[in-house]
Amino acid sequence: MTRTTVSTNESIVLAGWARNTRRSALQDMLSLCARPGILSLALGLPAPELFPAQAYAKACADTLADPRSLQYGPPSERLKVQIVGLMEQRGVKCGPEQVFLTAGAQQAMNLLARLLLDAGGKVCLEELSYTGFHQVIEPFEPELLTVRTDPDTGMDVDSVEAMLRRGTRPAFIYAMTDGHNPVSVGMALKKREALVGLARHYGVPILEDDAYGFLYYDRTNLPPLRAFDEGHVFYIGSFSKIMAPALRAGWIIAPEELMARLSIVKEASDIDTSTFSQRAISAYLDSGHLGEHLACLRTEYRARRDAMLRALGEHFPRESKWRTPGGGLFVWVELPEGVDAEELLRISIETEHVAFLPGSAFSVGRAPRARNCLRLNFSNNPAGRIEEGVGRLGRALKSVMR
Amino acid sequence: MTRTTVSTNESIVLAGWARNTRRSALQDMLSLCARPGILSLALGLPAPELFPAQAYAKACADTLADPRSLQYGPPSERLKVQIVGLMEQRGVKCGPEQVFLTAGAQQAMNLLARLLLDAGGKVCLEELSYTGFHQVIEPFEPELLTVRTDPDTGMDVDSVEAMLRRGTRPAFIYAMTDGHNPVSVGMALKKREALVGLARHYGVPILEDDAYGFLYYDRTNLPPLRAFDEGHVFYIGSFSKIMAPALRAGWIIAPEELMARLSIVKEASDIDTSTFSQRAISAYLDSGHLGEHLACLRTEYRARRDAMLRALGEHFPRESKWRTPGGGLFVWVELPEGVDAEELLRISIETEHVAFLPGSAFSVGRAPRARNCLRLNFSNNPAGRIEEGVGRLGRALKSVMR
Repeated sequence: MTRTTVSTNESIVLAGWARNTRRSALQDMLSLCARPGILSLALGLPAPELFPAQAYAKACADTLADPRSLQYGPPSERLKVQIVGLMEQRGVKCGPEQVFLTAGAQQAMNLLARLLLDAGGKVCLEELSYTGFHQVIEPFEPELLTVRTDPDTGMDVDSVEAMLRRGTRPAFIYAMTDGHNPVSVGMALKKREALVGLARHYGVPILEDDAYGFLYYDRTNLPPLRAFDEGHVFYIGSFSKIMAPALRAGWIIAPEELMARLSIVKEASDIDTSTFSQRAISAYLDSGHLGEHLACLRTEYRARRDAMLRALGEHFPRESKWRTPGGGLFVWVELPEGVDAEELLRISIETEHVAFLPGSAFSVGRAPRARNCLRLNFSNNPAGRIEEGVGRLGRALKSVMR
Repeated sequence: MTRTTVSTNESIVLAGWARNTRRSALQDMLSLCARPGILSLALGLPAPELFPAQAYAKACADTLADPRSLQYGPPSERLKVQIVGLMEQRGVKCGPEQVFLTAGAQQAMNLLARLLLDAGGKVCLEELSYTGFHQVIEPFEPELLTVRTDPDTGMDVDSVEAMLRRGTRPAFIYAMTDGHNPVSVGMALKKREALVGLARHYGVPILEDDAYGFLYYDRTNLPPLRAFDEGHVFYIGSFSKIMAPALRAGWIIAPEELMARLSIVKEASDIDTSTFSQRAISAYLDSGHLGEHLACLRTEYRARRDAMLRALGEHFPRESKWRTPGGGLFVWVELPEGVDAEELLRISIETEHVAFLPGSAFSVGRAPRARNCLRLNFSNNPAGRIEEGVGRLGRALKSVMR
């Protein structure tokens, strides 16, 4: 047999959805953000300088003292109990038998989509929503039932109700109750109650993505949807933003009856969540420092948020609008109608070396929405860099609006 | 709004495949293996006492000195280059641009199935094959095209050819070329060449699962399929068995043209492979101790394998058959026709406190095959425990055959 090098892409047949998937022009542009010298307000990264690295190093070293920490293993009962304690801080009562450990919130969404969604099934979500969730459901080629997001009160729950009343039954409703990504709004209390009531009345589950739920900056923090109903809300939490992303650990709170099936989907996905990560997180939580660390994150991120808001007031045109986000990692800015945020991004990267995400990146459906909007991250740069970045962005904006 | 607790399972509608999925009686029984006092030859676990725990502790500590090791991050170019070096040891030439990092071999199979398989699509695999692969494809509700496995030469490649000649085109062929799980055979050289030739001629890709490829115990180790063709073979490797499972890291060698699409599927699955794991593995590989560690694993696992073979000769009836596996972690035992290995497992757990996996657990399709076969693991117990376990299993067997 001769060993010839074969050009592949001609002969390999991909799955239907994958044939139609390509990196967008936007993704190509964003890969430029990684260039040295770019001041990026684009991604939702936590601040690495705030990671309690010394405490983790101790937790890791203690964990490694037992070689079984490096072995495959069942989900940690100890960590589940600790997560029950964390959930209490969010106003949620649950038991360890309702806690399912995952390799982060993104995996949690995948497992739940696998469990609930058939190919070609229906999903209810907001017109503007987390891109990683769009990626999760894309291979199912689902029918998308979209509703609007009010920048002051969150998801348009009336439209959800109208849809359900018409007899439409999505496999689930995707909701970011707090720290909404990208609109950075918390859902109003009445809407929380109404949405859960609808889920219960119509027997439609909710996927509640609470990846940012522990990062709130004001007194008004409300309990997540899961606090109002345990039968219809699949709650998703993550250690990525409150501890560190590289731990790759998160959790689902779900009805106990579904744990066995979730285990099958999880095992099929990646066998188990790192025993080492589970034990290191437990060791850190046992040390009792998380409360202090969360307080530190809230104080520091609040200061960064406020620095961004001040800089926006100083450098952005009067016709632009934004709100003070009560939680999460982003400020959502609406520029005057007609300003194209994708064009602004191109110019901003080229001339000012500043990156952000244009609103259209979060838009589902054919006609891109929020073309005049920006999502600006305030967690991943110190206040001075944020002010510098917003100042430069203001200059780029002036040249676009001229 | 009243807060009533709702019983859920009635109202939540699951995806079609998940409604039909339940833990099997076998899975329920296997959960008994975790009971203290059970000597388990059931699972494919590496030996934790052989993990180079001190070297890892150093690599982890060095890695944690940089807090960015805990952040999200792009795939490590350094680790890709190191994997290219590892592949050379398997006789495979590839470039770092063909290396795709994953959270282990199980995830690698998932990503590739997502990329290549449509719902209801066709998959070619052996009648007896890795259960984790069955779990990967189950949600696609695929049409299974099965072929037999010869215990001396591996997959029945003639049947694969006949199928392709008839015009049937599976999305891919799943193959475990070395350390076959569960039959523990290495594919004969001529079959390797023939299978790759078929993949090329008919334009059908191969998923080559080489999770055990670095664990061979004889001189005859052959190069994997990927060494014969770079256009049609998706090679899957793992650090779980050669370093440690809790690192949750593995890799795919795939055509460069498909890297962008694989990135989309990976990002959708779990964002990224732990930056910390990637860096800690790189630090350990840089220390230059892997060669020595692999030599140690091969020596020790060979000794355990031989202890198992000796014990089988001593305690198992003459009519049973097994071969000396040249690689992997298992011995495959055929008992006399008519002996039911599931019944043996029940009795063996109850009376002798020894667990193993019955052959039927690896069987796909309606009529379970290999009902009279056992898969015995030799990596996860020291030689003395293996001898003890096989001895007890022999006693249970006598009572079943009586």
